[in-house]
Amino acid sequence: MQTSARSSGPRARKNVGIMTGFPPPDFAGRITRSFGRQPAMALIGAELTRVEHGTVEIELPFDEKLTQQHGFLHAGVISAALDTACGYAAYSVIDADASILTIEFKVNLMSPGRGERFLFRGEITKPGSNIIVADGRGYAISDGPAKLIASMTSTMMVVRGREDITE
Amino acid sequence: MQTSARSSGPRARKNVGIMTGFPPPDFAGRITRSFGRQPAMALIGAELTRVEHGTVEIELPFDEKLTQQHGFLHAGVISAALDTACGYAAYSVIDADASILTIEFKVNLMSPGRGERFLFRGEITKPGSNIIVADGRGYAISDGPAKLIASMTSTMMVVRGREDITE
Amino acid sequence: MQTSARSSGPRARKNVGIMTGFPPPDFAGRITRSFGRQPAMALIGAELTRVEHGTVEIELPFDEKLTQQHGFLHAGVISAALDTACGYAAYSVIDADASILTIEFKVNLMSPGRGERFLFRGEITKPGSNIIVADGRGYAISDGPAKLIASMTSTMMVVRGREDITE
Amino acid sequence: MQTSARSSGPRARKNVGIMTGFPPPDFAGRITRSFGRQPAMALIGAELTRVEHGTVEIELPFDEKLTQQHGFLHAGVISAALDTACGYAAYSVIDADASILTIEFKVNLMSPGRGERFLFRGEITKPGSNIIVADGRGYAISDGPAKLIASMTSTMMVVRGREDITE
Repeated sequence: MQTSARSSGPRARKNVGIMTGFPPPDFAGRITRSFGRQPAMALIGAELTRVEHGTVEIELPFDEKLTQQHGFLHAGVISAALDTACGYAAYSVIDADASILTIEFKVNLMSPGRGERFLFRGEITKPGSNIIVADGRGYAISDGPAKLIASMTSTMMVVRGREDITE
Repeated sequence: MQTSARSSGPRARKNVGIMTGFPPPDFAGRITRSFGRQPAMALIGAELTRVEHGTVEIELPFDEKLTQQHGFLHAGVISAALDTACGYAAYSVIDADASILTIEFKVNLMSPGRGERFLFRGEITKPGSNIIVADGRGYAISDGPAKLIASMTSTMMVVRGREDITE
Repeated sequence: MQTSARSSGPRARKNVGIMTGFPPPDFAGRITRSFGRQPAMALIGAELTRVEHGTVEIELPFDEKLTQQHGFLHAGVISAALDTACGYAAYSVIDADASILTIEFKVNLMSPGRGERFLFRGEITKPGSNIIVADGRGYAISDGPAKLIASMTSTMMVVRGREDITE
Repeated sequence: MQTSARSSGPRARKNVGIMTGFPPPDFAGRITRSFGRQPAMALIGAELTRVEHGTVEIELPFDEKLTQQHGFLHAGVISAALDTACGYAAYSVIDADASILTIEFKVNLMSPGRGERFLFRGEITKPGSNIIVADGRGYAISDGPAKLIASMTSTMMVVRGREDITE
């Protein structure tokens, strides 16, 4: 075996060409309005800072009220922000008459949630008409380089025609 | 093949005999004190309602401030409560000089977070000196039977000798 | 707080009353025939040993060809058996004209895959018309008590009307 | 809010700078020898096709014996290949006297396992002296562009001094 001698197809294409469809009209407006209706996001001081076709970011400043017993950002707060970022990334690739429900997610906690601010990014890994998969990353930001603190893989369902779940 | 004719070993033993070790001294006091030092638990109105060797429960009343855009309990709040219940279930089976860090968890959201109250239970599935696995269940409680709304499987690490992570 | 003094609703009902619907006609026959059409199950020497409404078990003897570099049962073989057990548990609760696709699963590896035989059980945690969640457990069996070696949580989709996915 | 107007720190740095340490000596030789001692990899016809610091790829041709009842590659085979790719990616970043145990993984199945060949890549997301997190991707390869069929996030433990787990 030669290490890295073969040039198998998908190597160079990683993360390219996933978002080939046209973005839905006014997805950014829809996402921004929906985010504004989330009391839980206000509770944790989260701000929507980036909305693109397939990618959404949320940021929040450190706040002692969001911590667990060791003084780190609580894993539930990290999950809330990553789930929201992944969910709105999914909203950015669906039709205006559809909505999103999270079926499940997995969170890896890689470093303690210490920092001045935190950034959470959700990106679409697999769009779909029924099931959408997104991956998220959480970073702690202080002086110096951002530090990866958590990742999420989220599986979501596209729902239509449910009056209790609109946007 | 006869359906269910065989009596394979582990069938009858399910959920039996896992917590065979002696419980650590005053684990309930340690857990109660640690829970009281979690600002994030106060923020979401969570209460520690059951502490046993291998099992911990947390409850919280519905509060509009904890909801997402559809008015359901936010998945991040569900994760916070389940992670905490699983984490303290792990504290109930480790020595007093050790502590717990969550490495990762998976959450399945099975029904919308609607109800008057919510109960979250964490139970030890696999104790260990290095790695502990716990499973959690979340229920919505109103009139009528409790409804399963979420599950968690959590993988935790037993840490010793870290001054920033005590209890 | 009194430890375990409160008697919150879902405690006593755990694992009770989930499978309240009528089982679909001849689900055991359907599952047995489908299992027999899985070349991968033959490859790993798996046998279907229990089929009930909501619960399916698969067993396989240890075989050196199924091992990884340390001589333990490969995590992929464990995943194959658990995914199959969970999948057929889902088949046992759906209509005869529907079929099942696994969307995702999580596997925890708790002890090395050492033993004379292995038993894998899949059980329905949450039935549904669109999404079904099952939990699996894997056990190593030798002399003495069975040993829990792995767990799975699996999310599956109920599909209808797809000619390439029948049973 | 302006969409994508802010330039938050970690955006440009994604996937850059993770593998900053020196690679361990002869990691490719060690991985190649260990792969050759995995009977389960021979069983599924897997070939080690790329070994780099932090990245490992495995490929296998379609074979009817590896399929489930619909004729697609079995999820267990996908898991076996992804777990192996992620595991050896971890071996590529640890010292020669350490070894790797998989604690848990999550697999998302995104498209049916149909194709002439399959490629599975494991990449280190978070190196560490105790816990390593890797992400994997599986692709089906036929004529035309490779198709993403599955992803994995894997959590692994670095073990030292265990005679039954060497390499």
